[in-house]
Amino acid sequence: MHNHLPDIKNNFSEWYNEVIYKAQLVDHSPVRGTMVVMPYGTAIWEQIQNVLDKQIKETGHRNALFPLFIPKSFLEKEKEHVAGFSPEFAVVTHAGGKDLEEPLIVRPTSETIIHHMFSRWIKSWRDLPLKINQWCSVVRWEMRPRPFLRTTEFFWQEGHTAHATEKEALEEVDLMVLEYQKLIEGFLAIPIIMGKKTEKEKFPGAVMTKTFEGIMPDGKALQMGTSHYLSQNFAHAFDMKFQDKEGNLSYPYLTSWGVTTRLIGAMVMMHGDQKGLIIPPKIAPIQVVIIPIIKKNANEAEIMDYAKKLHQELKNQNILCHLDEDQHNTPGTKFYHWELRGVPLRIEIGAQECEKNTLTCVNRVNNEKQIISRSDAAKNIDFLLKNIQELLFSQAKKREKELLGTTKTLNDFIEIIENNRSAKTNWCGKSSCEEKLKEHKASIRCIVADAVQSNNCFVCNEKSNHEIIAARAY
Amino acid sequence: MHNHLPDIKNNFSEWYNEVIYKAQLVDHSPVRGTMVVMPYGTAIWEQIQNVLDKQIKETGHRNALFPLFIPKSFLEKEKEHVAGFSPEFAVVTHAGGKDLEEPLIVRPTSETIIHHMFSRWIKSWRDLPLKINQWCSVVRWEMRPRPFLRTTEFFWQEGHTAHATEKEALEEVDLMVLEYQKLIEGFLAIPIIMGKKTEKEKFPGAVMTKTFEGIMPDGKALQMGTSHYLSQNFAHAFDMKFQDKEGNLSYPYLTSWGVTTRLIGAMVMMHGDQKGLIIPPKIAPIQVVIIPIIKKNANEAEIMDYAKKLHQELKNQNILCHLDEDQHNTPGTKFYHWELRGVPLRIEIGAQECEKNTLTCVNRVNNEKQIISRSDAAKNIDFLLKNIQELLFSQAKKREKELLGTTKTLNDFIEIIENNRSAKTNWCGKSSCEEKLKEHKASIRCIVADAVQSNNCFVCNEKSNHEIIAARAY
Repeated sequence: MHNHLPDIKNNFSEWYNEVIYKAQLVDHSPVRGTMVVMPYGTAIWEQIQNVLDKQIKETGHRNALFPLFIPKSFLEKEKEHVAGFSPEFAVVTHAGGKDLEEPLIVRPTSETIIHHMFSRWIKSWRDLPLKINQWCSVVRWEMRPRPFLRTTEFFWQEGHTAHATEKEALEEVDLMVLEYQKLIEGFLAIPIIMGKKTEKEKFPGAVMTKTFEGIMPDGKALQMGTSHYLSQNFAHAFDMKFQDKEGNLSYPYLTSWGVTTRLIGAMVMMHGDQKGLIIPPKIAPIQVVIIPIIKKNANEAEIMDYAKKLHQELKNQNILCHLDEDQHNTPGTKFYHWELRGVPLRIEIGAQECEKNTLTCVNRVNNEKQIISRSDAAKNIDFLLKNIQELLFSQAKKREKELLGTTKTLNDFIEIIENNRSAKTNWCGKSSCEEKLKEHKASIRCIVADAVQSNNCFVCNEKSNHEIIAARAY
Repeated sequence: MHNHLPDIKNNFSEWYNEVIYKAQLVDHSPVRGTMVVMPYGTAIWEQIQNVLDKQIKETGHRNALFPLFIPKSFLEKEKEHVAGFSPEFAVVTHAGGKDLEEPLIVRPTSETIIHHMFSRWIKSWRDLPLKINQWCSVVRWEMRPRPFLRTTEFFWQEGHTAHATEKEALEEVDLMVLEYQKLIEGFLAIPIIMGKKTEKEKFPGAVMTKTFEGIMPDGKALQMGTSHYLSQNFAHAFDMKFQDKEGNLSYPYLTSWGVTTRLIGAMVMMHGDQKGLIIPPKIAPIQVVIIPIIKKNANEAEIMDYAKKLHQELKNQNILCHLDEDQHNTPGTKFYHWELRGVPLRIEIGAQECEKNTLTCVNRVNNEKQIISRSDAAKNIDFLLKNIQELLFSQAKKREKELLGTTKTLNDFIEIIENNRSAKTNWCGKSSCEEKLKEHKASIRCIVADAVQSNNCFVCNEKSNHEIIAARAY
């Protein structure tokens, strides 16, 4: 009854492709490129939503709901924007029994329709800042889909804000990067590298894109979300004007930012092991699983009673706790089942625990066993969960260090990526040097610092103004 | 500074069409038939979602996420289903730069794709019952859209369940009607009439549809949600089979049920008055608004301090409370502003309140003023909010009685509906009698009892087996 996952060290990609199905996060969808997010995967997404939605609201944003369909002409109003997204459009040409006069695009992102509404809502400086967020799904036709990482339809939140000054807009871009950092490092236990995208890699229509990347265990970088400074581009395109305090008409400065169900993929890759998922306690839909162990001649009623009382007590203390009462499976099968699903803490209850008034706790990360006293259970378990959360983050942080090499030359860089790592290095800023990386299926993931560097560009060996992360990427 | 809404008594329809925009629940969308749900409207929907999602989970259902697109062939597998929905399809014919081999329908409802997945997930009686819910938007091309009541895209939850026996499935259909009743009567303060749809009016593909209708102030009925017994129809269509306890292959019995953003429209109509919305306290995103009243020579700092402390205290006690600190508007303008938006309780704080350590509370429903002590504020305000909630429901219940006539003849019935009321009456069960109502733009909204009736059919005067509600409807 082993979980039989592909070898995580040598077949990381296959391991990922199997674990997400076996742990029942997703299932195969009959619609090419899309995914069915199963109840367990949906529960994880809801946990992420709860945390982030609170952060978004506490920083002064309000949720709203915009149409799923965007008139094609709207998307064409900003040239770079339409050029970036049009190859991925899904197009409704027919509705209500008729051909449509103007095709409707299923939203790939909602800047254009939201900015249309902003131009109705923003008249005076008193209407600013306008800070809106939407939870929804978006559609971008993908040629090589992978669940969570890259799918034709995915779930996300998209924030859209308008400000009276450039300074305020830039502060908003940074504010949201910090909020995302709180979510991703603080709850998902994934260390992030923050930086700017290059001109080539930035969001179509943006002036500047901030990104946060994670180095996955196979050394590839994963973009986990972005925060864009749009300046006044879209404001001009959508004739969005306001009367400032002096009575002059101005165009507002815009931002947009988002994270997606990709975060679930990041979490799977970052913490999983040969036995399956490991879900960080702060995001786990089930933080604790209680497994009664009833051997021959044991007092089953007593054990079940002990387990049920604990279950109720932990639930009352807001610990997300599941009691596995299944009568058909052995404890061993149950262990595998919940290990595969990444429940961070297992509590075993047998005759001995009942007798001694203890609980046997097993940590999913390192399989460490701890026997704790039954009294003060919630407090002690809370403490164990906090430790697991910290252990996951420090373990991930340690691996990030190991996986992030430094290099001064392209040859070194190639060796680094061939060895399944990423690199911190220096870049002159020329796109010809950036293009060079393509030959090795790599790219500049982000610019972490803009200043004269002591080392030269790792490609052309000329003066460098940028410290960058270069890597292969998801 | 009056709100200037159309006369609610004589122009109910215009009143509705204006109040939803003026109170900023929705805005005009550039996409025909769709709506932009503004932050205030979205906050109300989120309140509804929070209540219902909890109920859905507590009754053993789990959320999942299914694709937005459904292959056309899936929808064609159940004949009545496709016949019912196909005139309203929005069709994606082109994606990723190519024409699609098989057109994709933007989901009008998800039975077909979810049942496809159920056929993968259900193998044995141990997989049953399977109880799934999805929160999403769906698309049905509407010719005469009205925000919340009938739009091309709307937001909803759709529950889908599979059971081993007919009995269990029928129990599920009834269970969810009761859960909806708790939501709609208990939180939205809207009295409902529960019953069965006629063969003509039931859900396409269902064997039986239970409905809950509300009688709106203009005497028209509004269907507020439905719970369908699908029997084994879709199970056959999707080859969904399980091995029962005896080892035989059986088809499961299915249900589906849903409520939509239409509930917001129902709430607007049911409780609104000439000044605007009235939101029931249990669903209001803002339950209490605090308005400082600073007259000439008043100690502004003292009043603001008093208001801020109250605001913080109420927030700490989980009362959803807003302090209107705006410096530009007069108190009178603020009163109109929050009355329009239906905040159920207003607290005025001026020099007198500070001096006497009191709060002046004004009830949105009947404009009653009450001066309460500042100490124990949260407890007292909670009490006032409970009273408002009860007042709204009893007021609505009283009006329902007035609006629901009884009749024994078609002529009487016509008079009733011409006078903007609905009728409880008796029906023989023949579709020819049901058809007759069409001539008067009315229909059978629901069958409230199936038994031999003492009165005959109000159309043909033959023996009646059904007590029904007949009305004009939204």
